[in-house]
Amino acid sequence: MAVEMKKVFTIALRLLALASTVVAIVVMVRSHDSAEVFNLTFTAKYSNTPAFKYFVIAEAVGGAYTVIVIFLYSKSILGRLIIILDTVITVLLSSSISAALAIAQVGKKGNSHAGWLPVCGQVPRFCDQATISLIAGFVAAVVYFVLLLCSLHAVLTPIFAAKP
Amino acid sequence: MAVEMKKVFTIALRLLALASTVVAIVVMVRSHDSAEVFNLTFTAKYSNTPAFKYFVIAEAVGGAYTVIVIFLYSKSILGRLIIILDTVITVLLSSSISAALAIAQVGKKGNSHAGWLPVCGQVPRFCDQATISLIAGFVAAVVYFVLLLCSLHAVLTPIFAAKP
Repeated sequence: MAVEMKKVFTIALRLLALASTVVAIVVMVRSHDSAEVFNLTFTAKYSNTPAFKYFVIAEAVGGAYTVIVIFLYSKSILGRLIIILDTVITVLLSSSISAALAIAQVGKKGNSHAGWLPVCGQVPRFCDQATISLIAGFVAAVVYFVLLLCSLHAVLTPIFAAKP
Repeated sequence: MAVEMKKVFTIALRLLALASTVVAIVVMVRSHDSAEVFNLTFTAKYSNTPAFKYFVIAEAVGGAYTVIVIFLYSKSILGRLIIILDTVITVLLSSSISAALAIAQVGKKGNSHAGWLPVCGQVPRFCDQATISLIAGFVAAVVYFVLLLCSLHAVLTPIFAAKP
């Protein structure tokens, strides 16, 4: 019964991670806004920023991996190898959300020392959409981090217990 | 003999990670340069950029943790709990280097769509020092990632072997 509960909990977490990556990708890819500054039209979209492109690619890899794992999980093929793959995906998701957040922070607050002005005043719709996408990406990274810690705890506990 | 070799290899990797974090912190904290643009003196230092501050803090946490683990490792106190802590440090280091690299990329190349000009032309010395620091931080993150995968492989192998 406890094992069944744990399986359901794990699959629920993976479905949450999958939903988060899908929301992150769709909202980020569809996000755009344009502004006119000094008669120059200025279009904001995710593909103008390498960190956002990396974010979308990482979310796509994370989402695709999650689909494969949910599909294989019921067949118990991969077994504990999943922990190693989960580690890689957790690092990938946390790395990409960090890079995207660093750029988003400059977009929102600017950096007066470097002379980089905030752009969210000009393209508020793009910033709102990017914020939603980054929140979804952050949720996906946190879910994977929790999943990984739970798996590690479960795998290591019998080893701890076996050691006097 | 194989176990001894593995211990030496692991400690060597941790010493390399420690050295990398120390280099990353020292070079980043000491980095500075100033330029005069339109009669305004413009000083570049790591503390002007939140992502670089996060990078220095993460490297400090990673370095301090590495010292503690090397000290405790010989006494075999923490045992396999180290794997869980290694996971946390790996995620922290990879997240911080990603955020710092995202900002460094804008510093070097700028982002014409957002109107952010590259600053490395004005403060080349700061950029060179930041680059050295980021390379060291990248090495630390990669070393921890390799350490973690090796530990996971070692822990999971008997489990794989036990399963027919």
